[in-house]
This record gives sequence, structure tokens and C-alpha cells, in this order.
Amino acid sequence: MTQSSANQGRVYLAGPDVFLLNAAAVLERKKELCAKHGFVGLSPFDNEIDRSGLSRHEVAHRIAAANEEMIRSCDLVIANLTPFRGPGADVGTVYEVGFARALGLPVFAYTNLAGSLLDRTRRWLGDRLKQRADGEFADQFDMIVEDLDCVDNLMIVGAVEAGGTGAGIVINAVPDKDSFTDLAGFETCLELAAR
Amino acid sequence: MTQSSANQGRVYLAGPDVFLLNAAAVLERKKELCAKHGFVGLSPFDNEIDRSGLSRHEVAHRIAAANEEMIRSCDLVIANLTPFRGPGADVGTVYEVGFARALGLPVFAYTNLAGSLLDRTRRWLGDRLKQRADGEFADQFDMIVEDLDCVDNLMIVGAVEAGGTGAGIVINAVPDKDSFTDLAGFETCLELAAR
Repeated sequence: MTQSSANQGRVYLAGPDVFLLNAAAVLERKKELCAKHGFVGLSPFDNEIDRSGLSRHEVAHRIAAANEEMIRSCDLVIANLTPFRGPGADVGTVYEVGFARALGLPVFAYTNLAGSLLDRTRRWLGDRLKQRADGEFADQFDMIVEDLDCVDNLMIVGAVEAGGTGAGIVINAVPDKDSFTDLAGFETCLELAAR
Repeated sequence: MTQSSANQGRVYLAGPDVFLLNAAAVLERKKELCAKHGFVGLSPFDNEIDRSGLSRHEVAHRIAAANEEMIRSCDLVIANLTPFRGPGADVGTVYEVGFARALGLPVFAYTNLAGSLLDRTRRWLGDRLKQRADGEFADQFDMIVEDLDCVDNLMIVGAVEAGGTGAGIVINAVPDKDSFTDLAGFETCLELAAR
């Protein structure tokens, strides 16, 4: 790993990457890319959680607390917003984006799937999609499908785009099988952050 | 609306309720329940967004900024974590929970659907669920299904349960058709917050 001489800050690596079978390798590669661009990458995998004697539920609490502490120690966040088990981003990642945003940290983000939230939600709903009396598209609970020309929920889009970095959510469409491992969008975020 | 004399604080009403056809009525009812328990409820519907001359995307930014400002003005959050278009909570709500948590606001939460995240995700994956070589259950991307005895993603559970309020996520199972309108769990959150 070639460490750049410039220290541009600590980057929290947010994303569903932690759920991958080869999570350790993908996160190690992200850290190498961080170093290449002068950053130090940190991921939830860097937290050492002693699970001895703890219930699974207590382990969850420990991981959550350690992740929050790690975000507080960072200078910026790069989030993987690739839709995860549904039309939108992984909720754990989104939680961390909101957390970072309230702390005033710049948030950069990428997604490996093209299309708007509206497109994806409509496709996902299939024949449960219907048009309400007021003309809006809605689901089986008569709940509106957000149509604000956004890649994902407006809170996430606001956090990334209105956060003062001048960067939008990086869209890097890849074949389905590479959805959670392709790192081109991640590297673009590093380039944006390095400006 | 009967306003209690005790002012116990401003409550941000987070949840996918805003997408309902009768959102205004449901949120008004939530505010009445807040008042009954001595709180003042505030919802994204209270923000006046002037959409004139704005693109839909710009409207999204305005709404996001106004919601964040509203959360900053509140003393606590009550979040509706009922799973929304997938096995987990609405991402907009989860963003706001993370945001509030970083600000140090107490977060109370309820869900109108019983079961663990593991149960729901396994059911949702159906025949895409498989067992990995390491014994863990995973999806079609070999991504693990979190098995930490939690109602939802561990970050959310940590925020609510470890936030110092002593309260857990309120589980109030109701018939499917009432998933997004039943407010018994919401009122339990108010009772917990009033302690």
C-alpha cells in the first residue's frame, strides 16, 4: 500500500459492504484507494468488539456505539448508497449519513445502480402500483411514491448535494453481479473529496 | 385540541406517515396525542415550502433542509419504524433518527409489525435466501442477513435502546391494513417519553 504524503483526513467507509462474504478484502481495497488519494479510510471492521459473554443483542449495541464513535473521529464520510434489498439504500448506511450530517461532516456518496427512486420503486411495486384519485402514483397502502427527480430519498440527496462540497451522488452503473463490489464510484468520491 | 398545561418539549414526528393519502389527518391526530401528553408535535407538513419556480429536485433540497432545521429545534424524536417497502424501516425516517442521535436528542420509536429483522428479511428473500459456506444465511449477492436478535438494523436499535431513555422500540402488531395508521404504539412512546 502506497501511502500518500498528504493527509487529507479520516474517511468513514459507510455501506452495506460489511455484509459481503469478502467484506474484509473489499474494505481493505477501499482503504488502499483512500491512501492512494491521501486519505485514511476507517471501516466498522476496524472496531474490535469483544463478544465474550454478550448476547447477540448486546453485541449489536456494542457495534452501534463503536461505529458512532468512529464517525465522530472522522473528517468525512463516503457512503455506498447502492440499493440494498429494496428500492432504496441500506438503512444502516443511511443512519450513518444522517448522523454524520448532523455533526457537520461532508458526505460523499456513490451508487452502482442507475435510475431514480421513482423508477426503481415503481418497478419494485409491480402490480401493487396504482394511481390515486389525486393523480399521484402510490402503493398498496395508498402511500405516495416520491417523485422529486432524486436518486434516493430526499433527505439523503439533500445531505450529499447540499452539504457544501459541491458534489452530487456519483452514479456508476455496473452489471448486477458487481453491484456491491465495483469500486469505480468510490474512487470518484475520493477524487471529489480531494479537491 | 386540549393542550396540557405541562410543556414537556417539542417532538419531531418522524415516519413514512407523510406518504399517506390522509397524511395530514394522521399527523394532526399525532399532534393531538402529543398535546394530550403535554408535548408539542411537529411534522414535516408544518414546514411551508414555496415551490414556485423551483424544479422538483430543488423542492427536495428545500424539504430536506427544512426537516433538518425542524429536528434541530426539537427536544426529542418519535419515529415510526414500521417496515416500508422492504424488510426494514423507511430510509428517510432512519436518516432522521441518525441525525437526531448525533445531536444528542432522545429517540423513541415504534413499529406496527412484529418479528425480527432476520425473520422479515428471510421471508422477503424467499428462494434467494441461501446458506453460505461459513454457515451464515445470505442473499443472492452472498451478503449476510444480520442475525443479532434485533427488530431492525443494529444502528437504529442502538440509537433507540442505548440512548439513555431506558425505553426499547415499542412493538405493536396490527392487521396489515392498519400498518401505517394505527397510533397505539405512537401513544406508548409518548407515555415513555413523559416519564
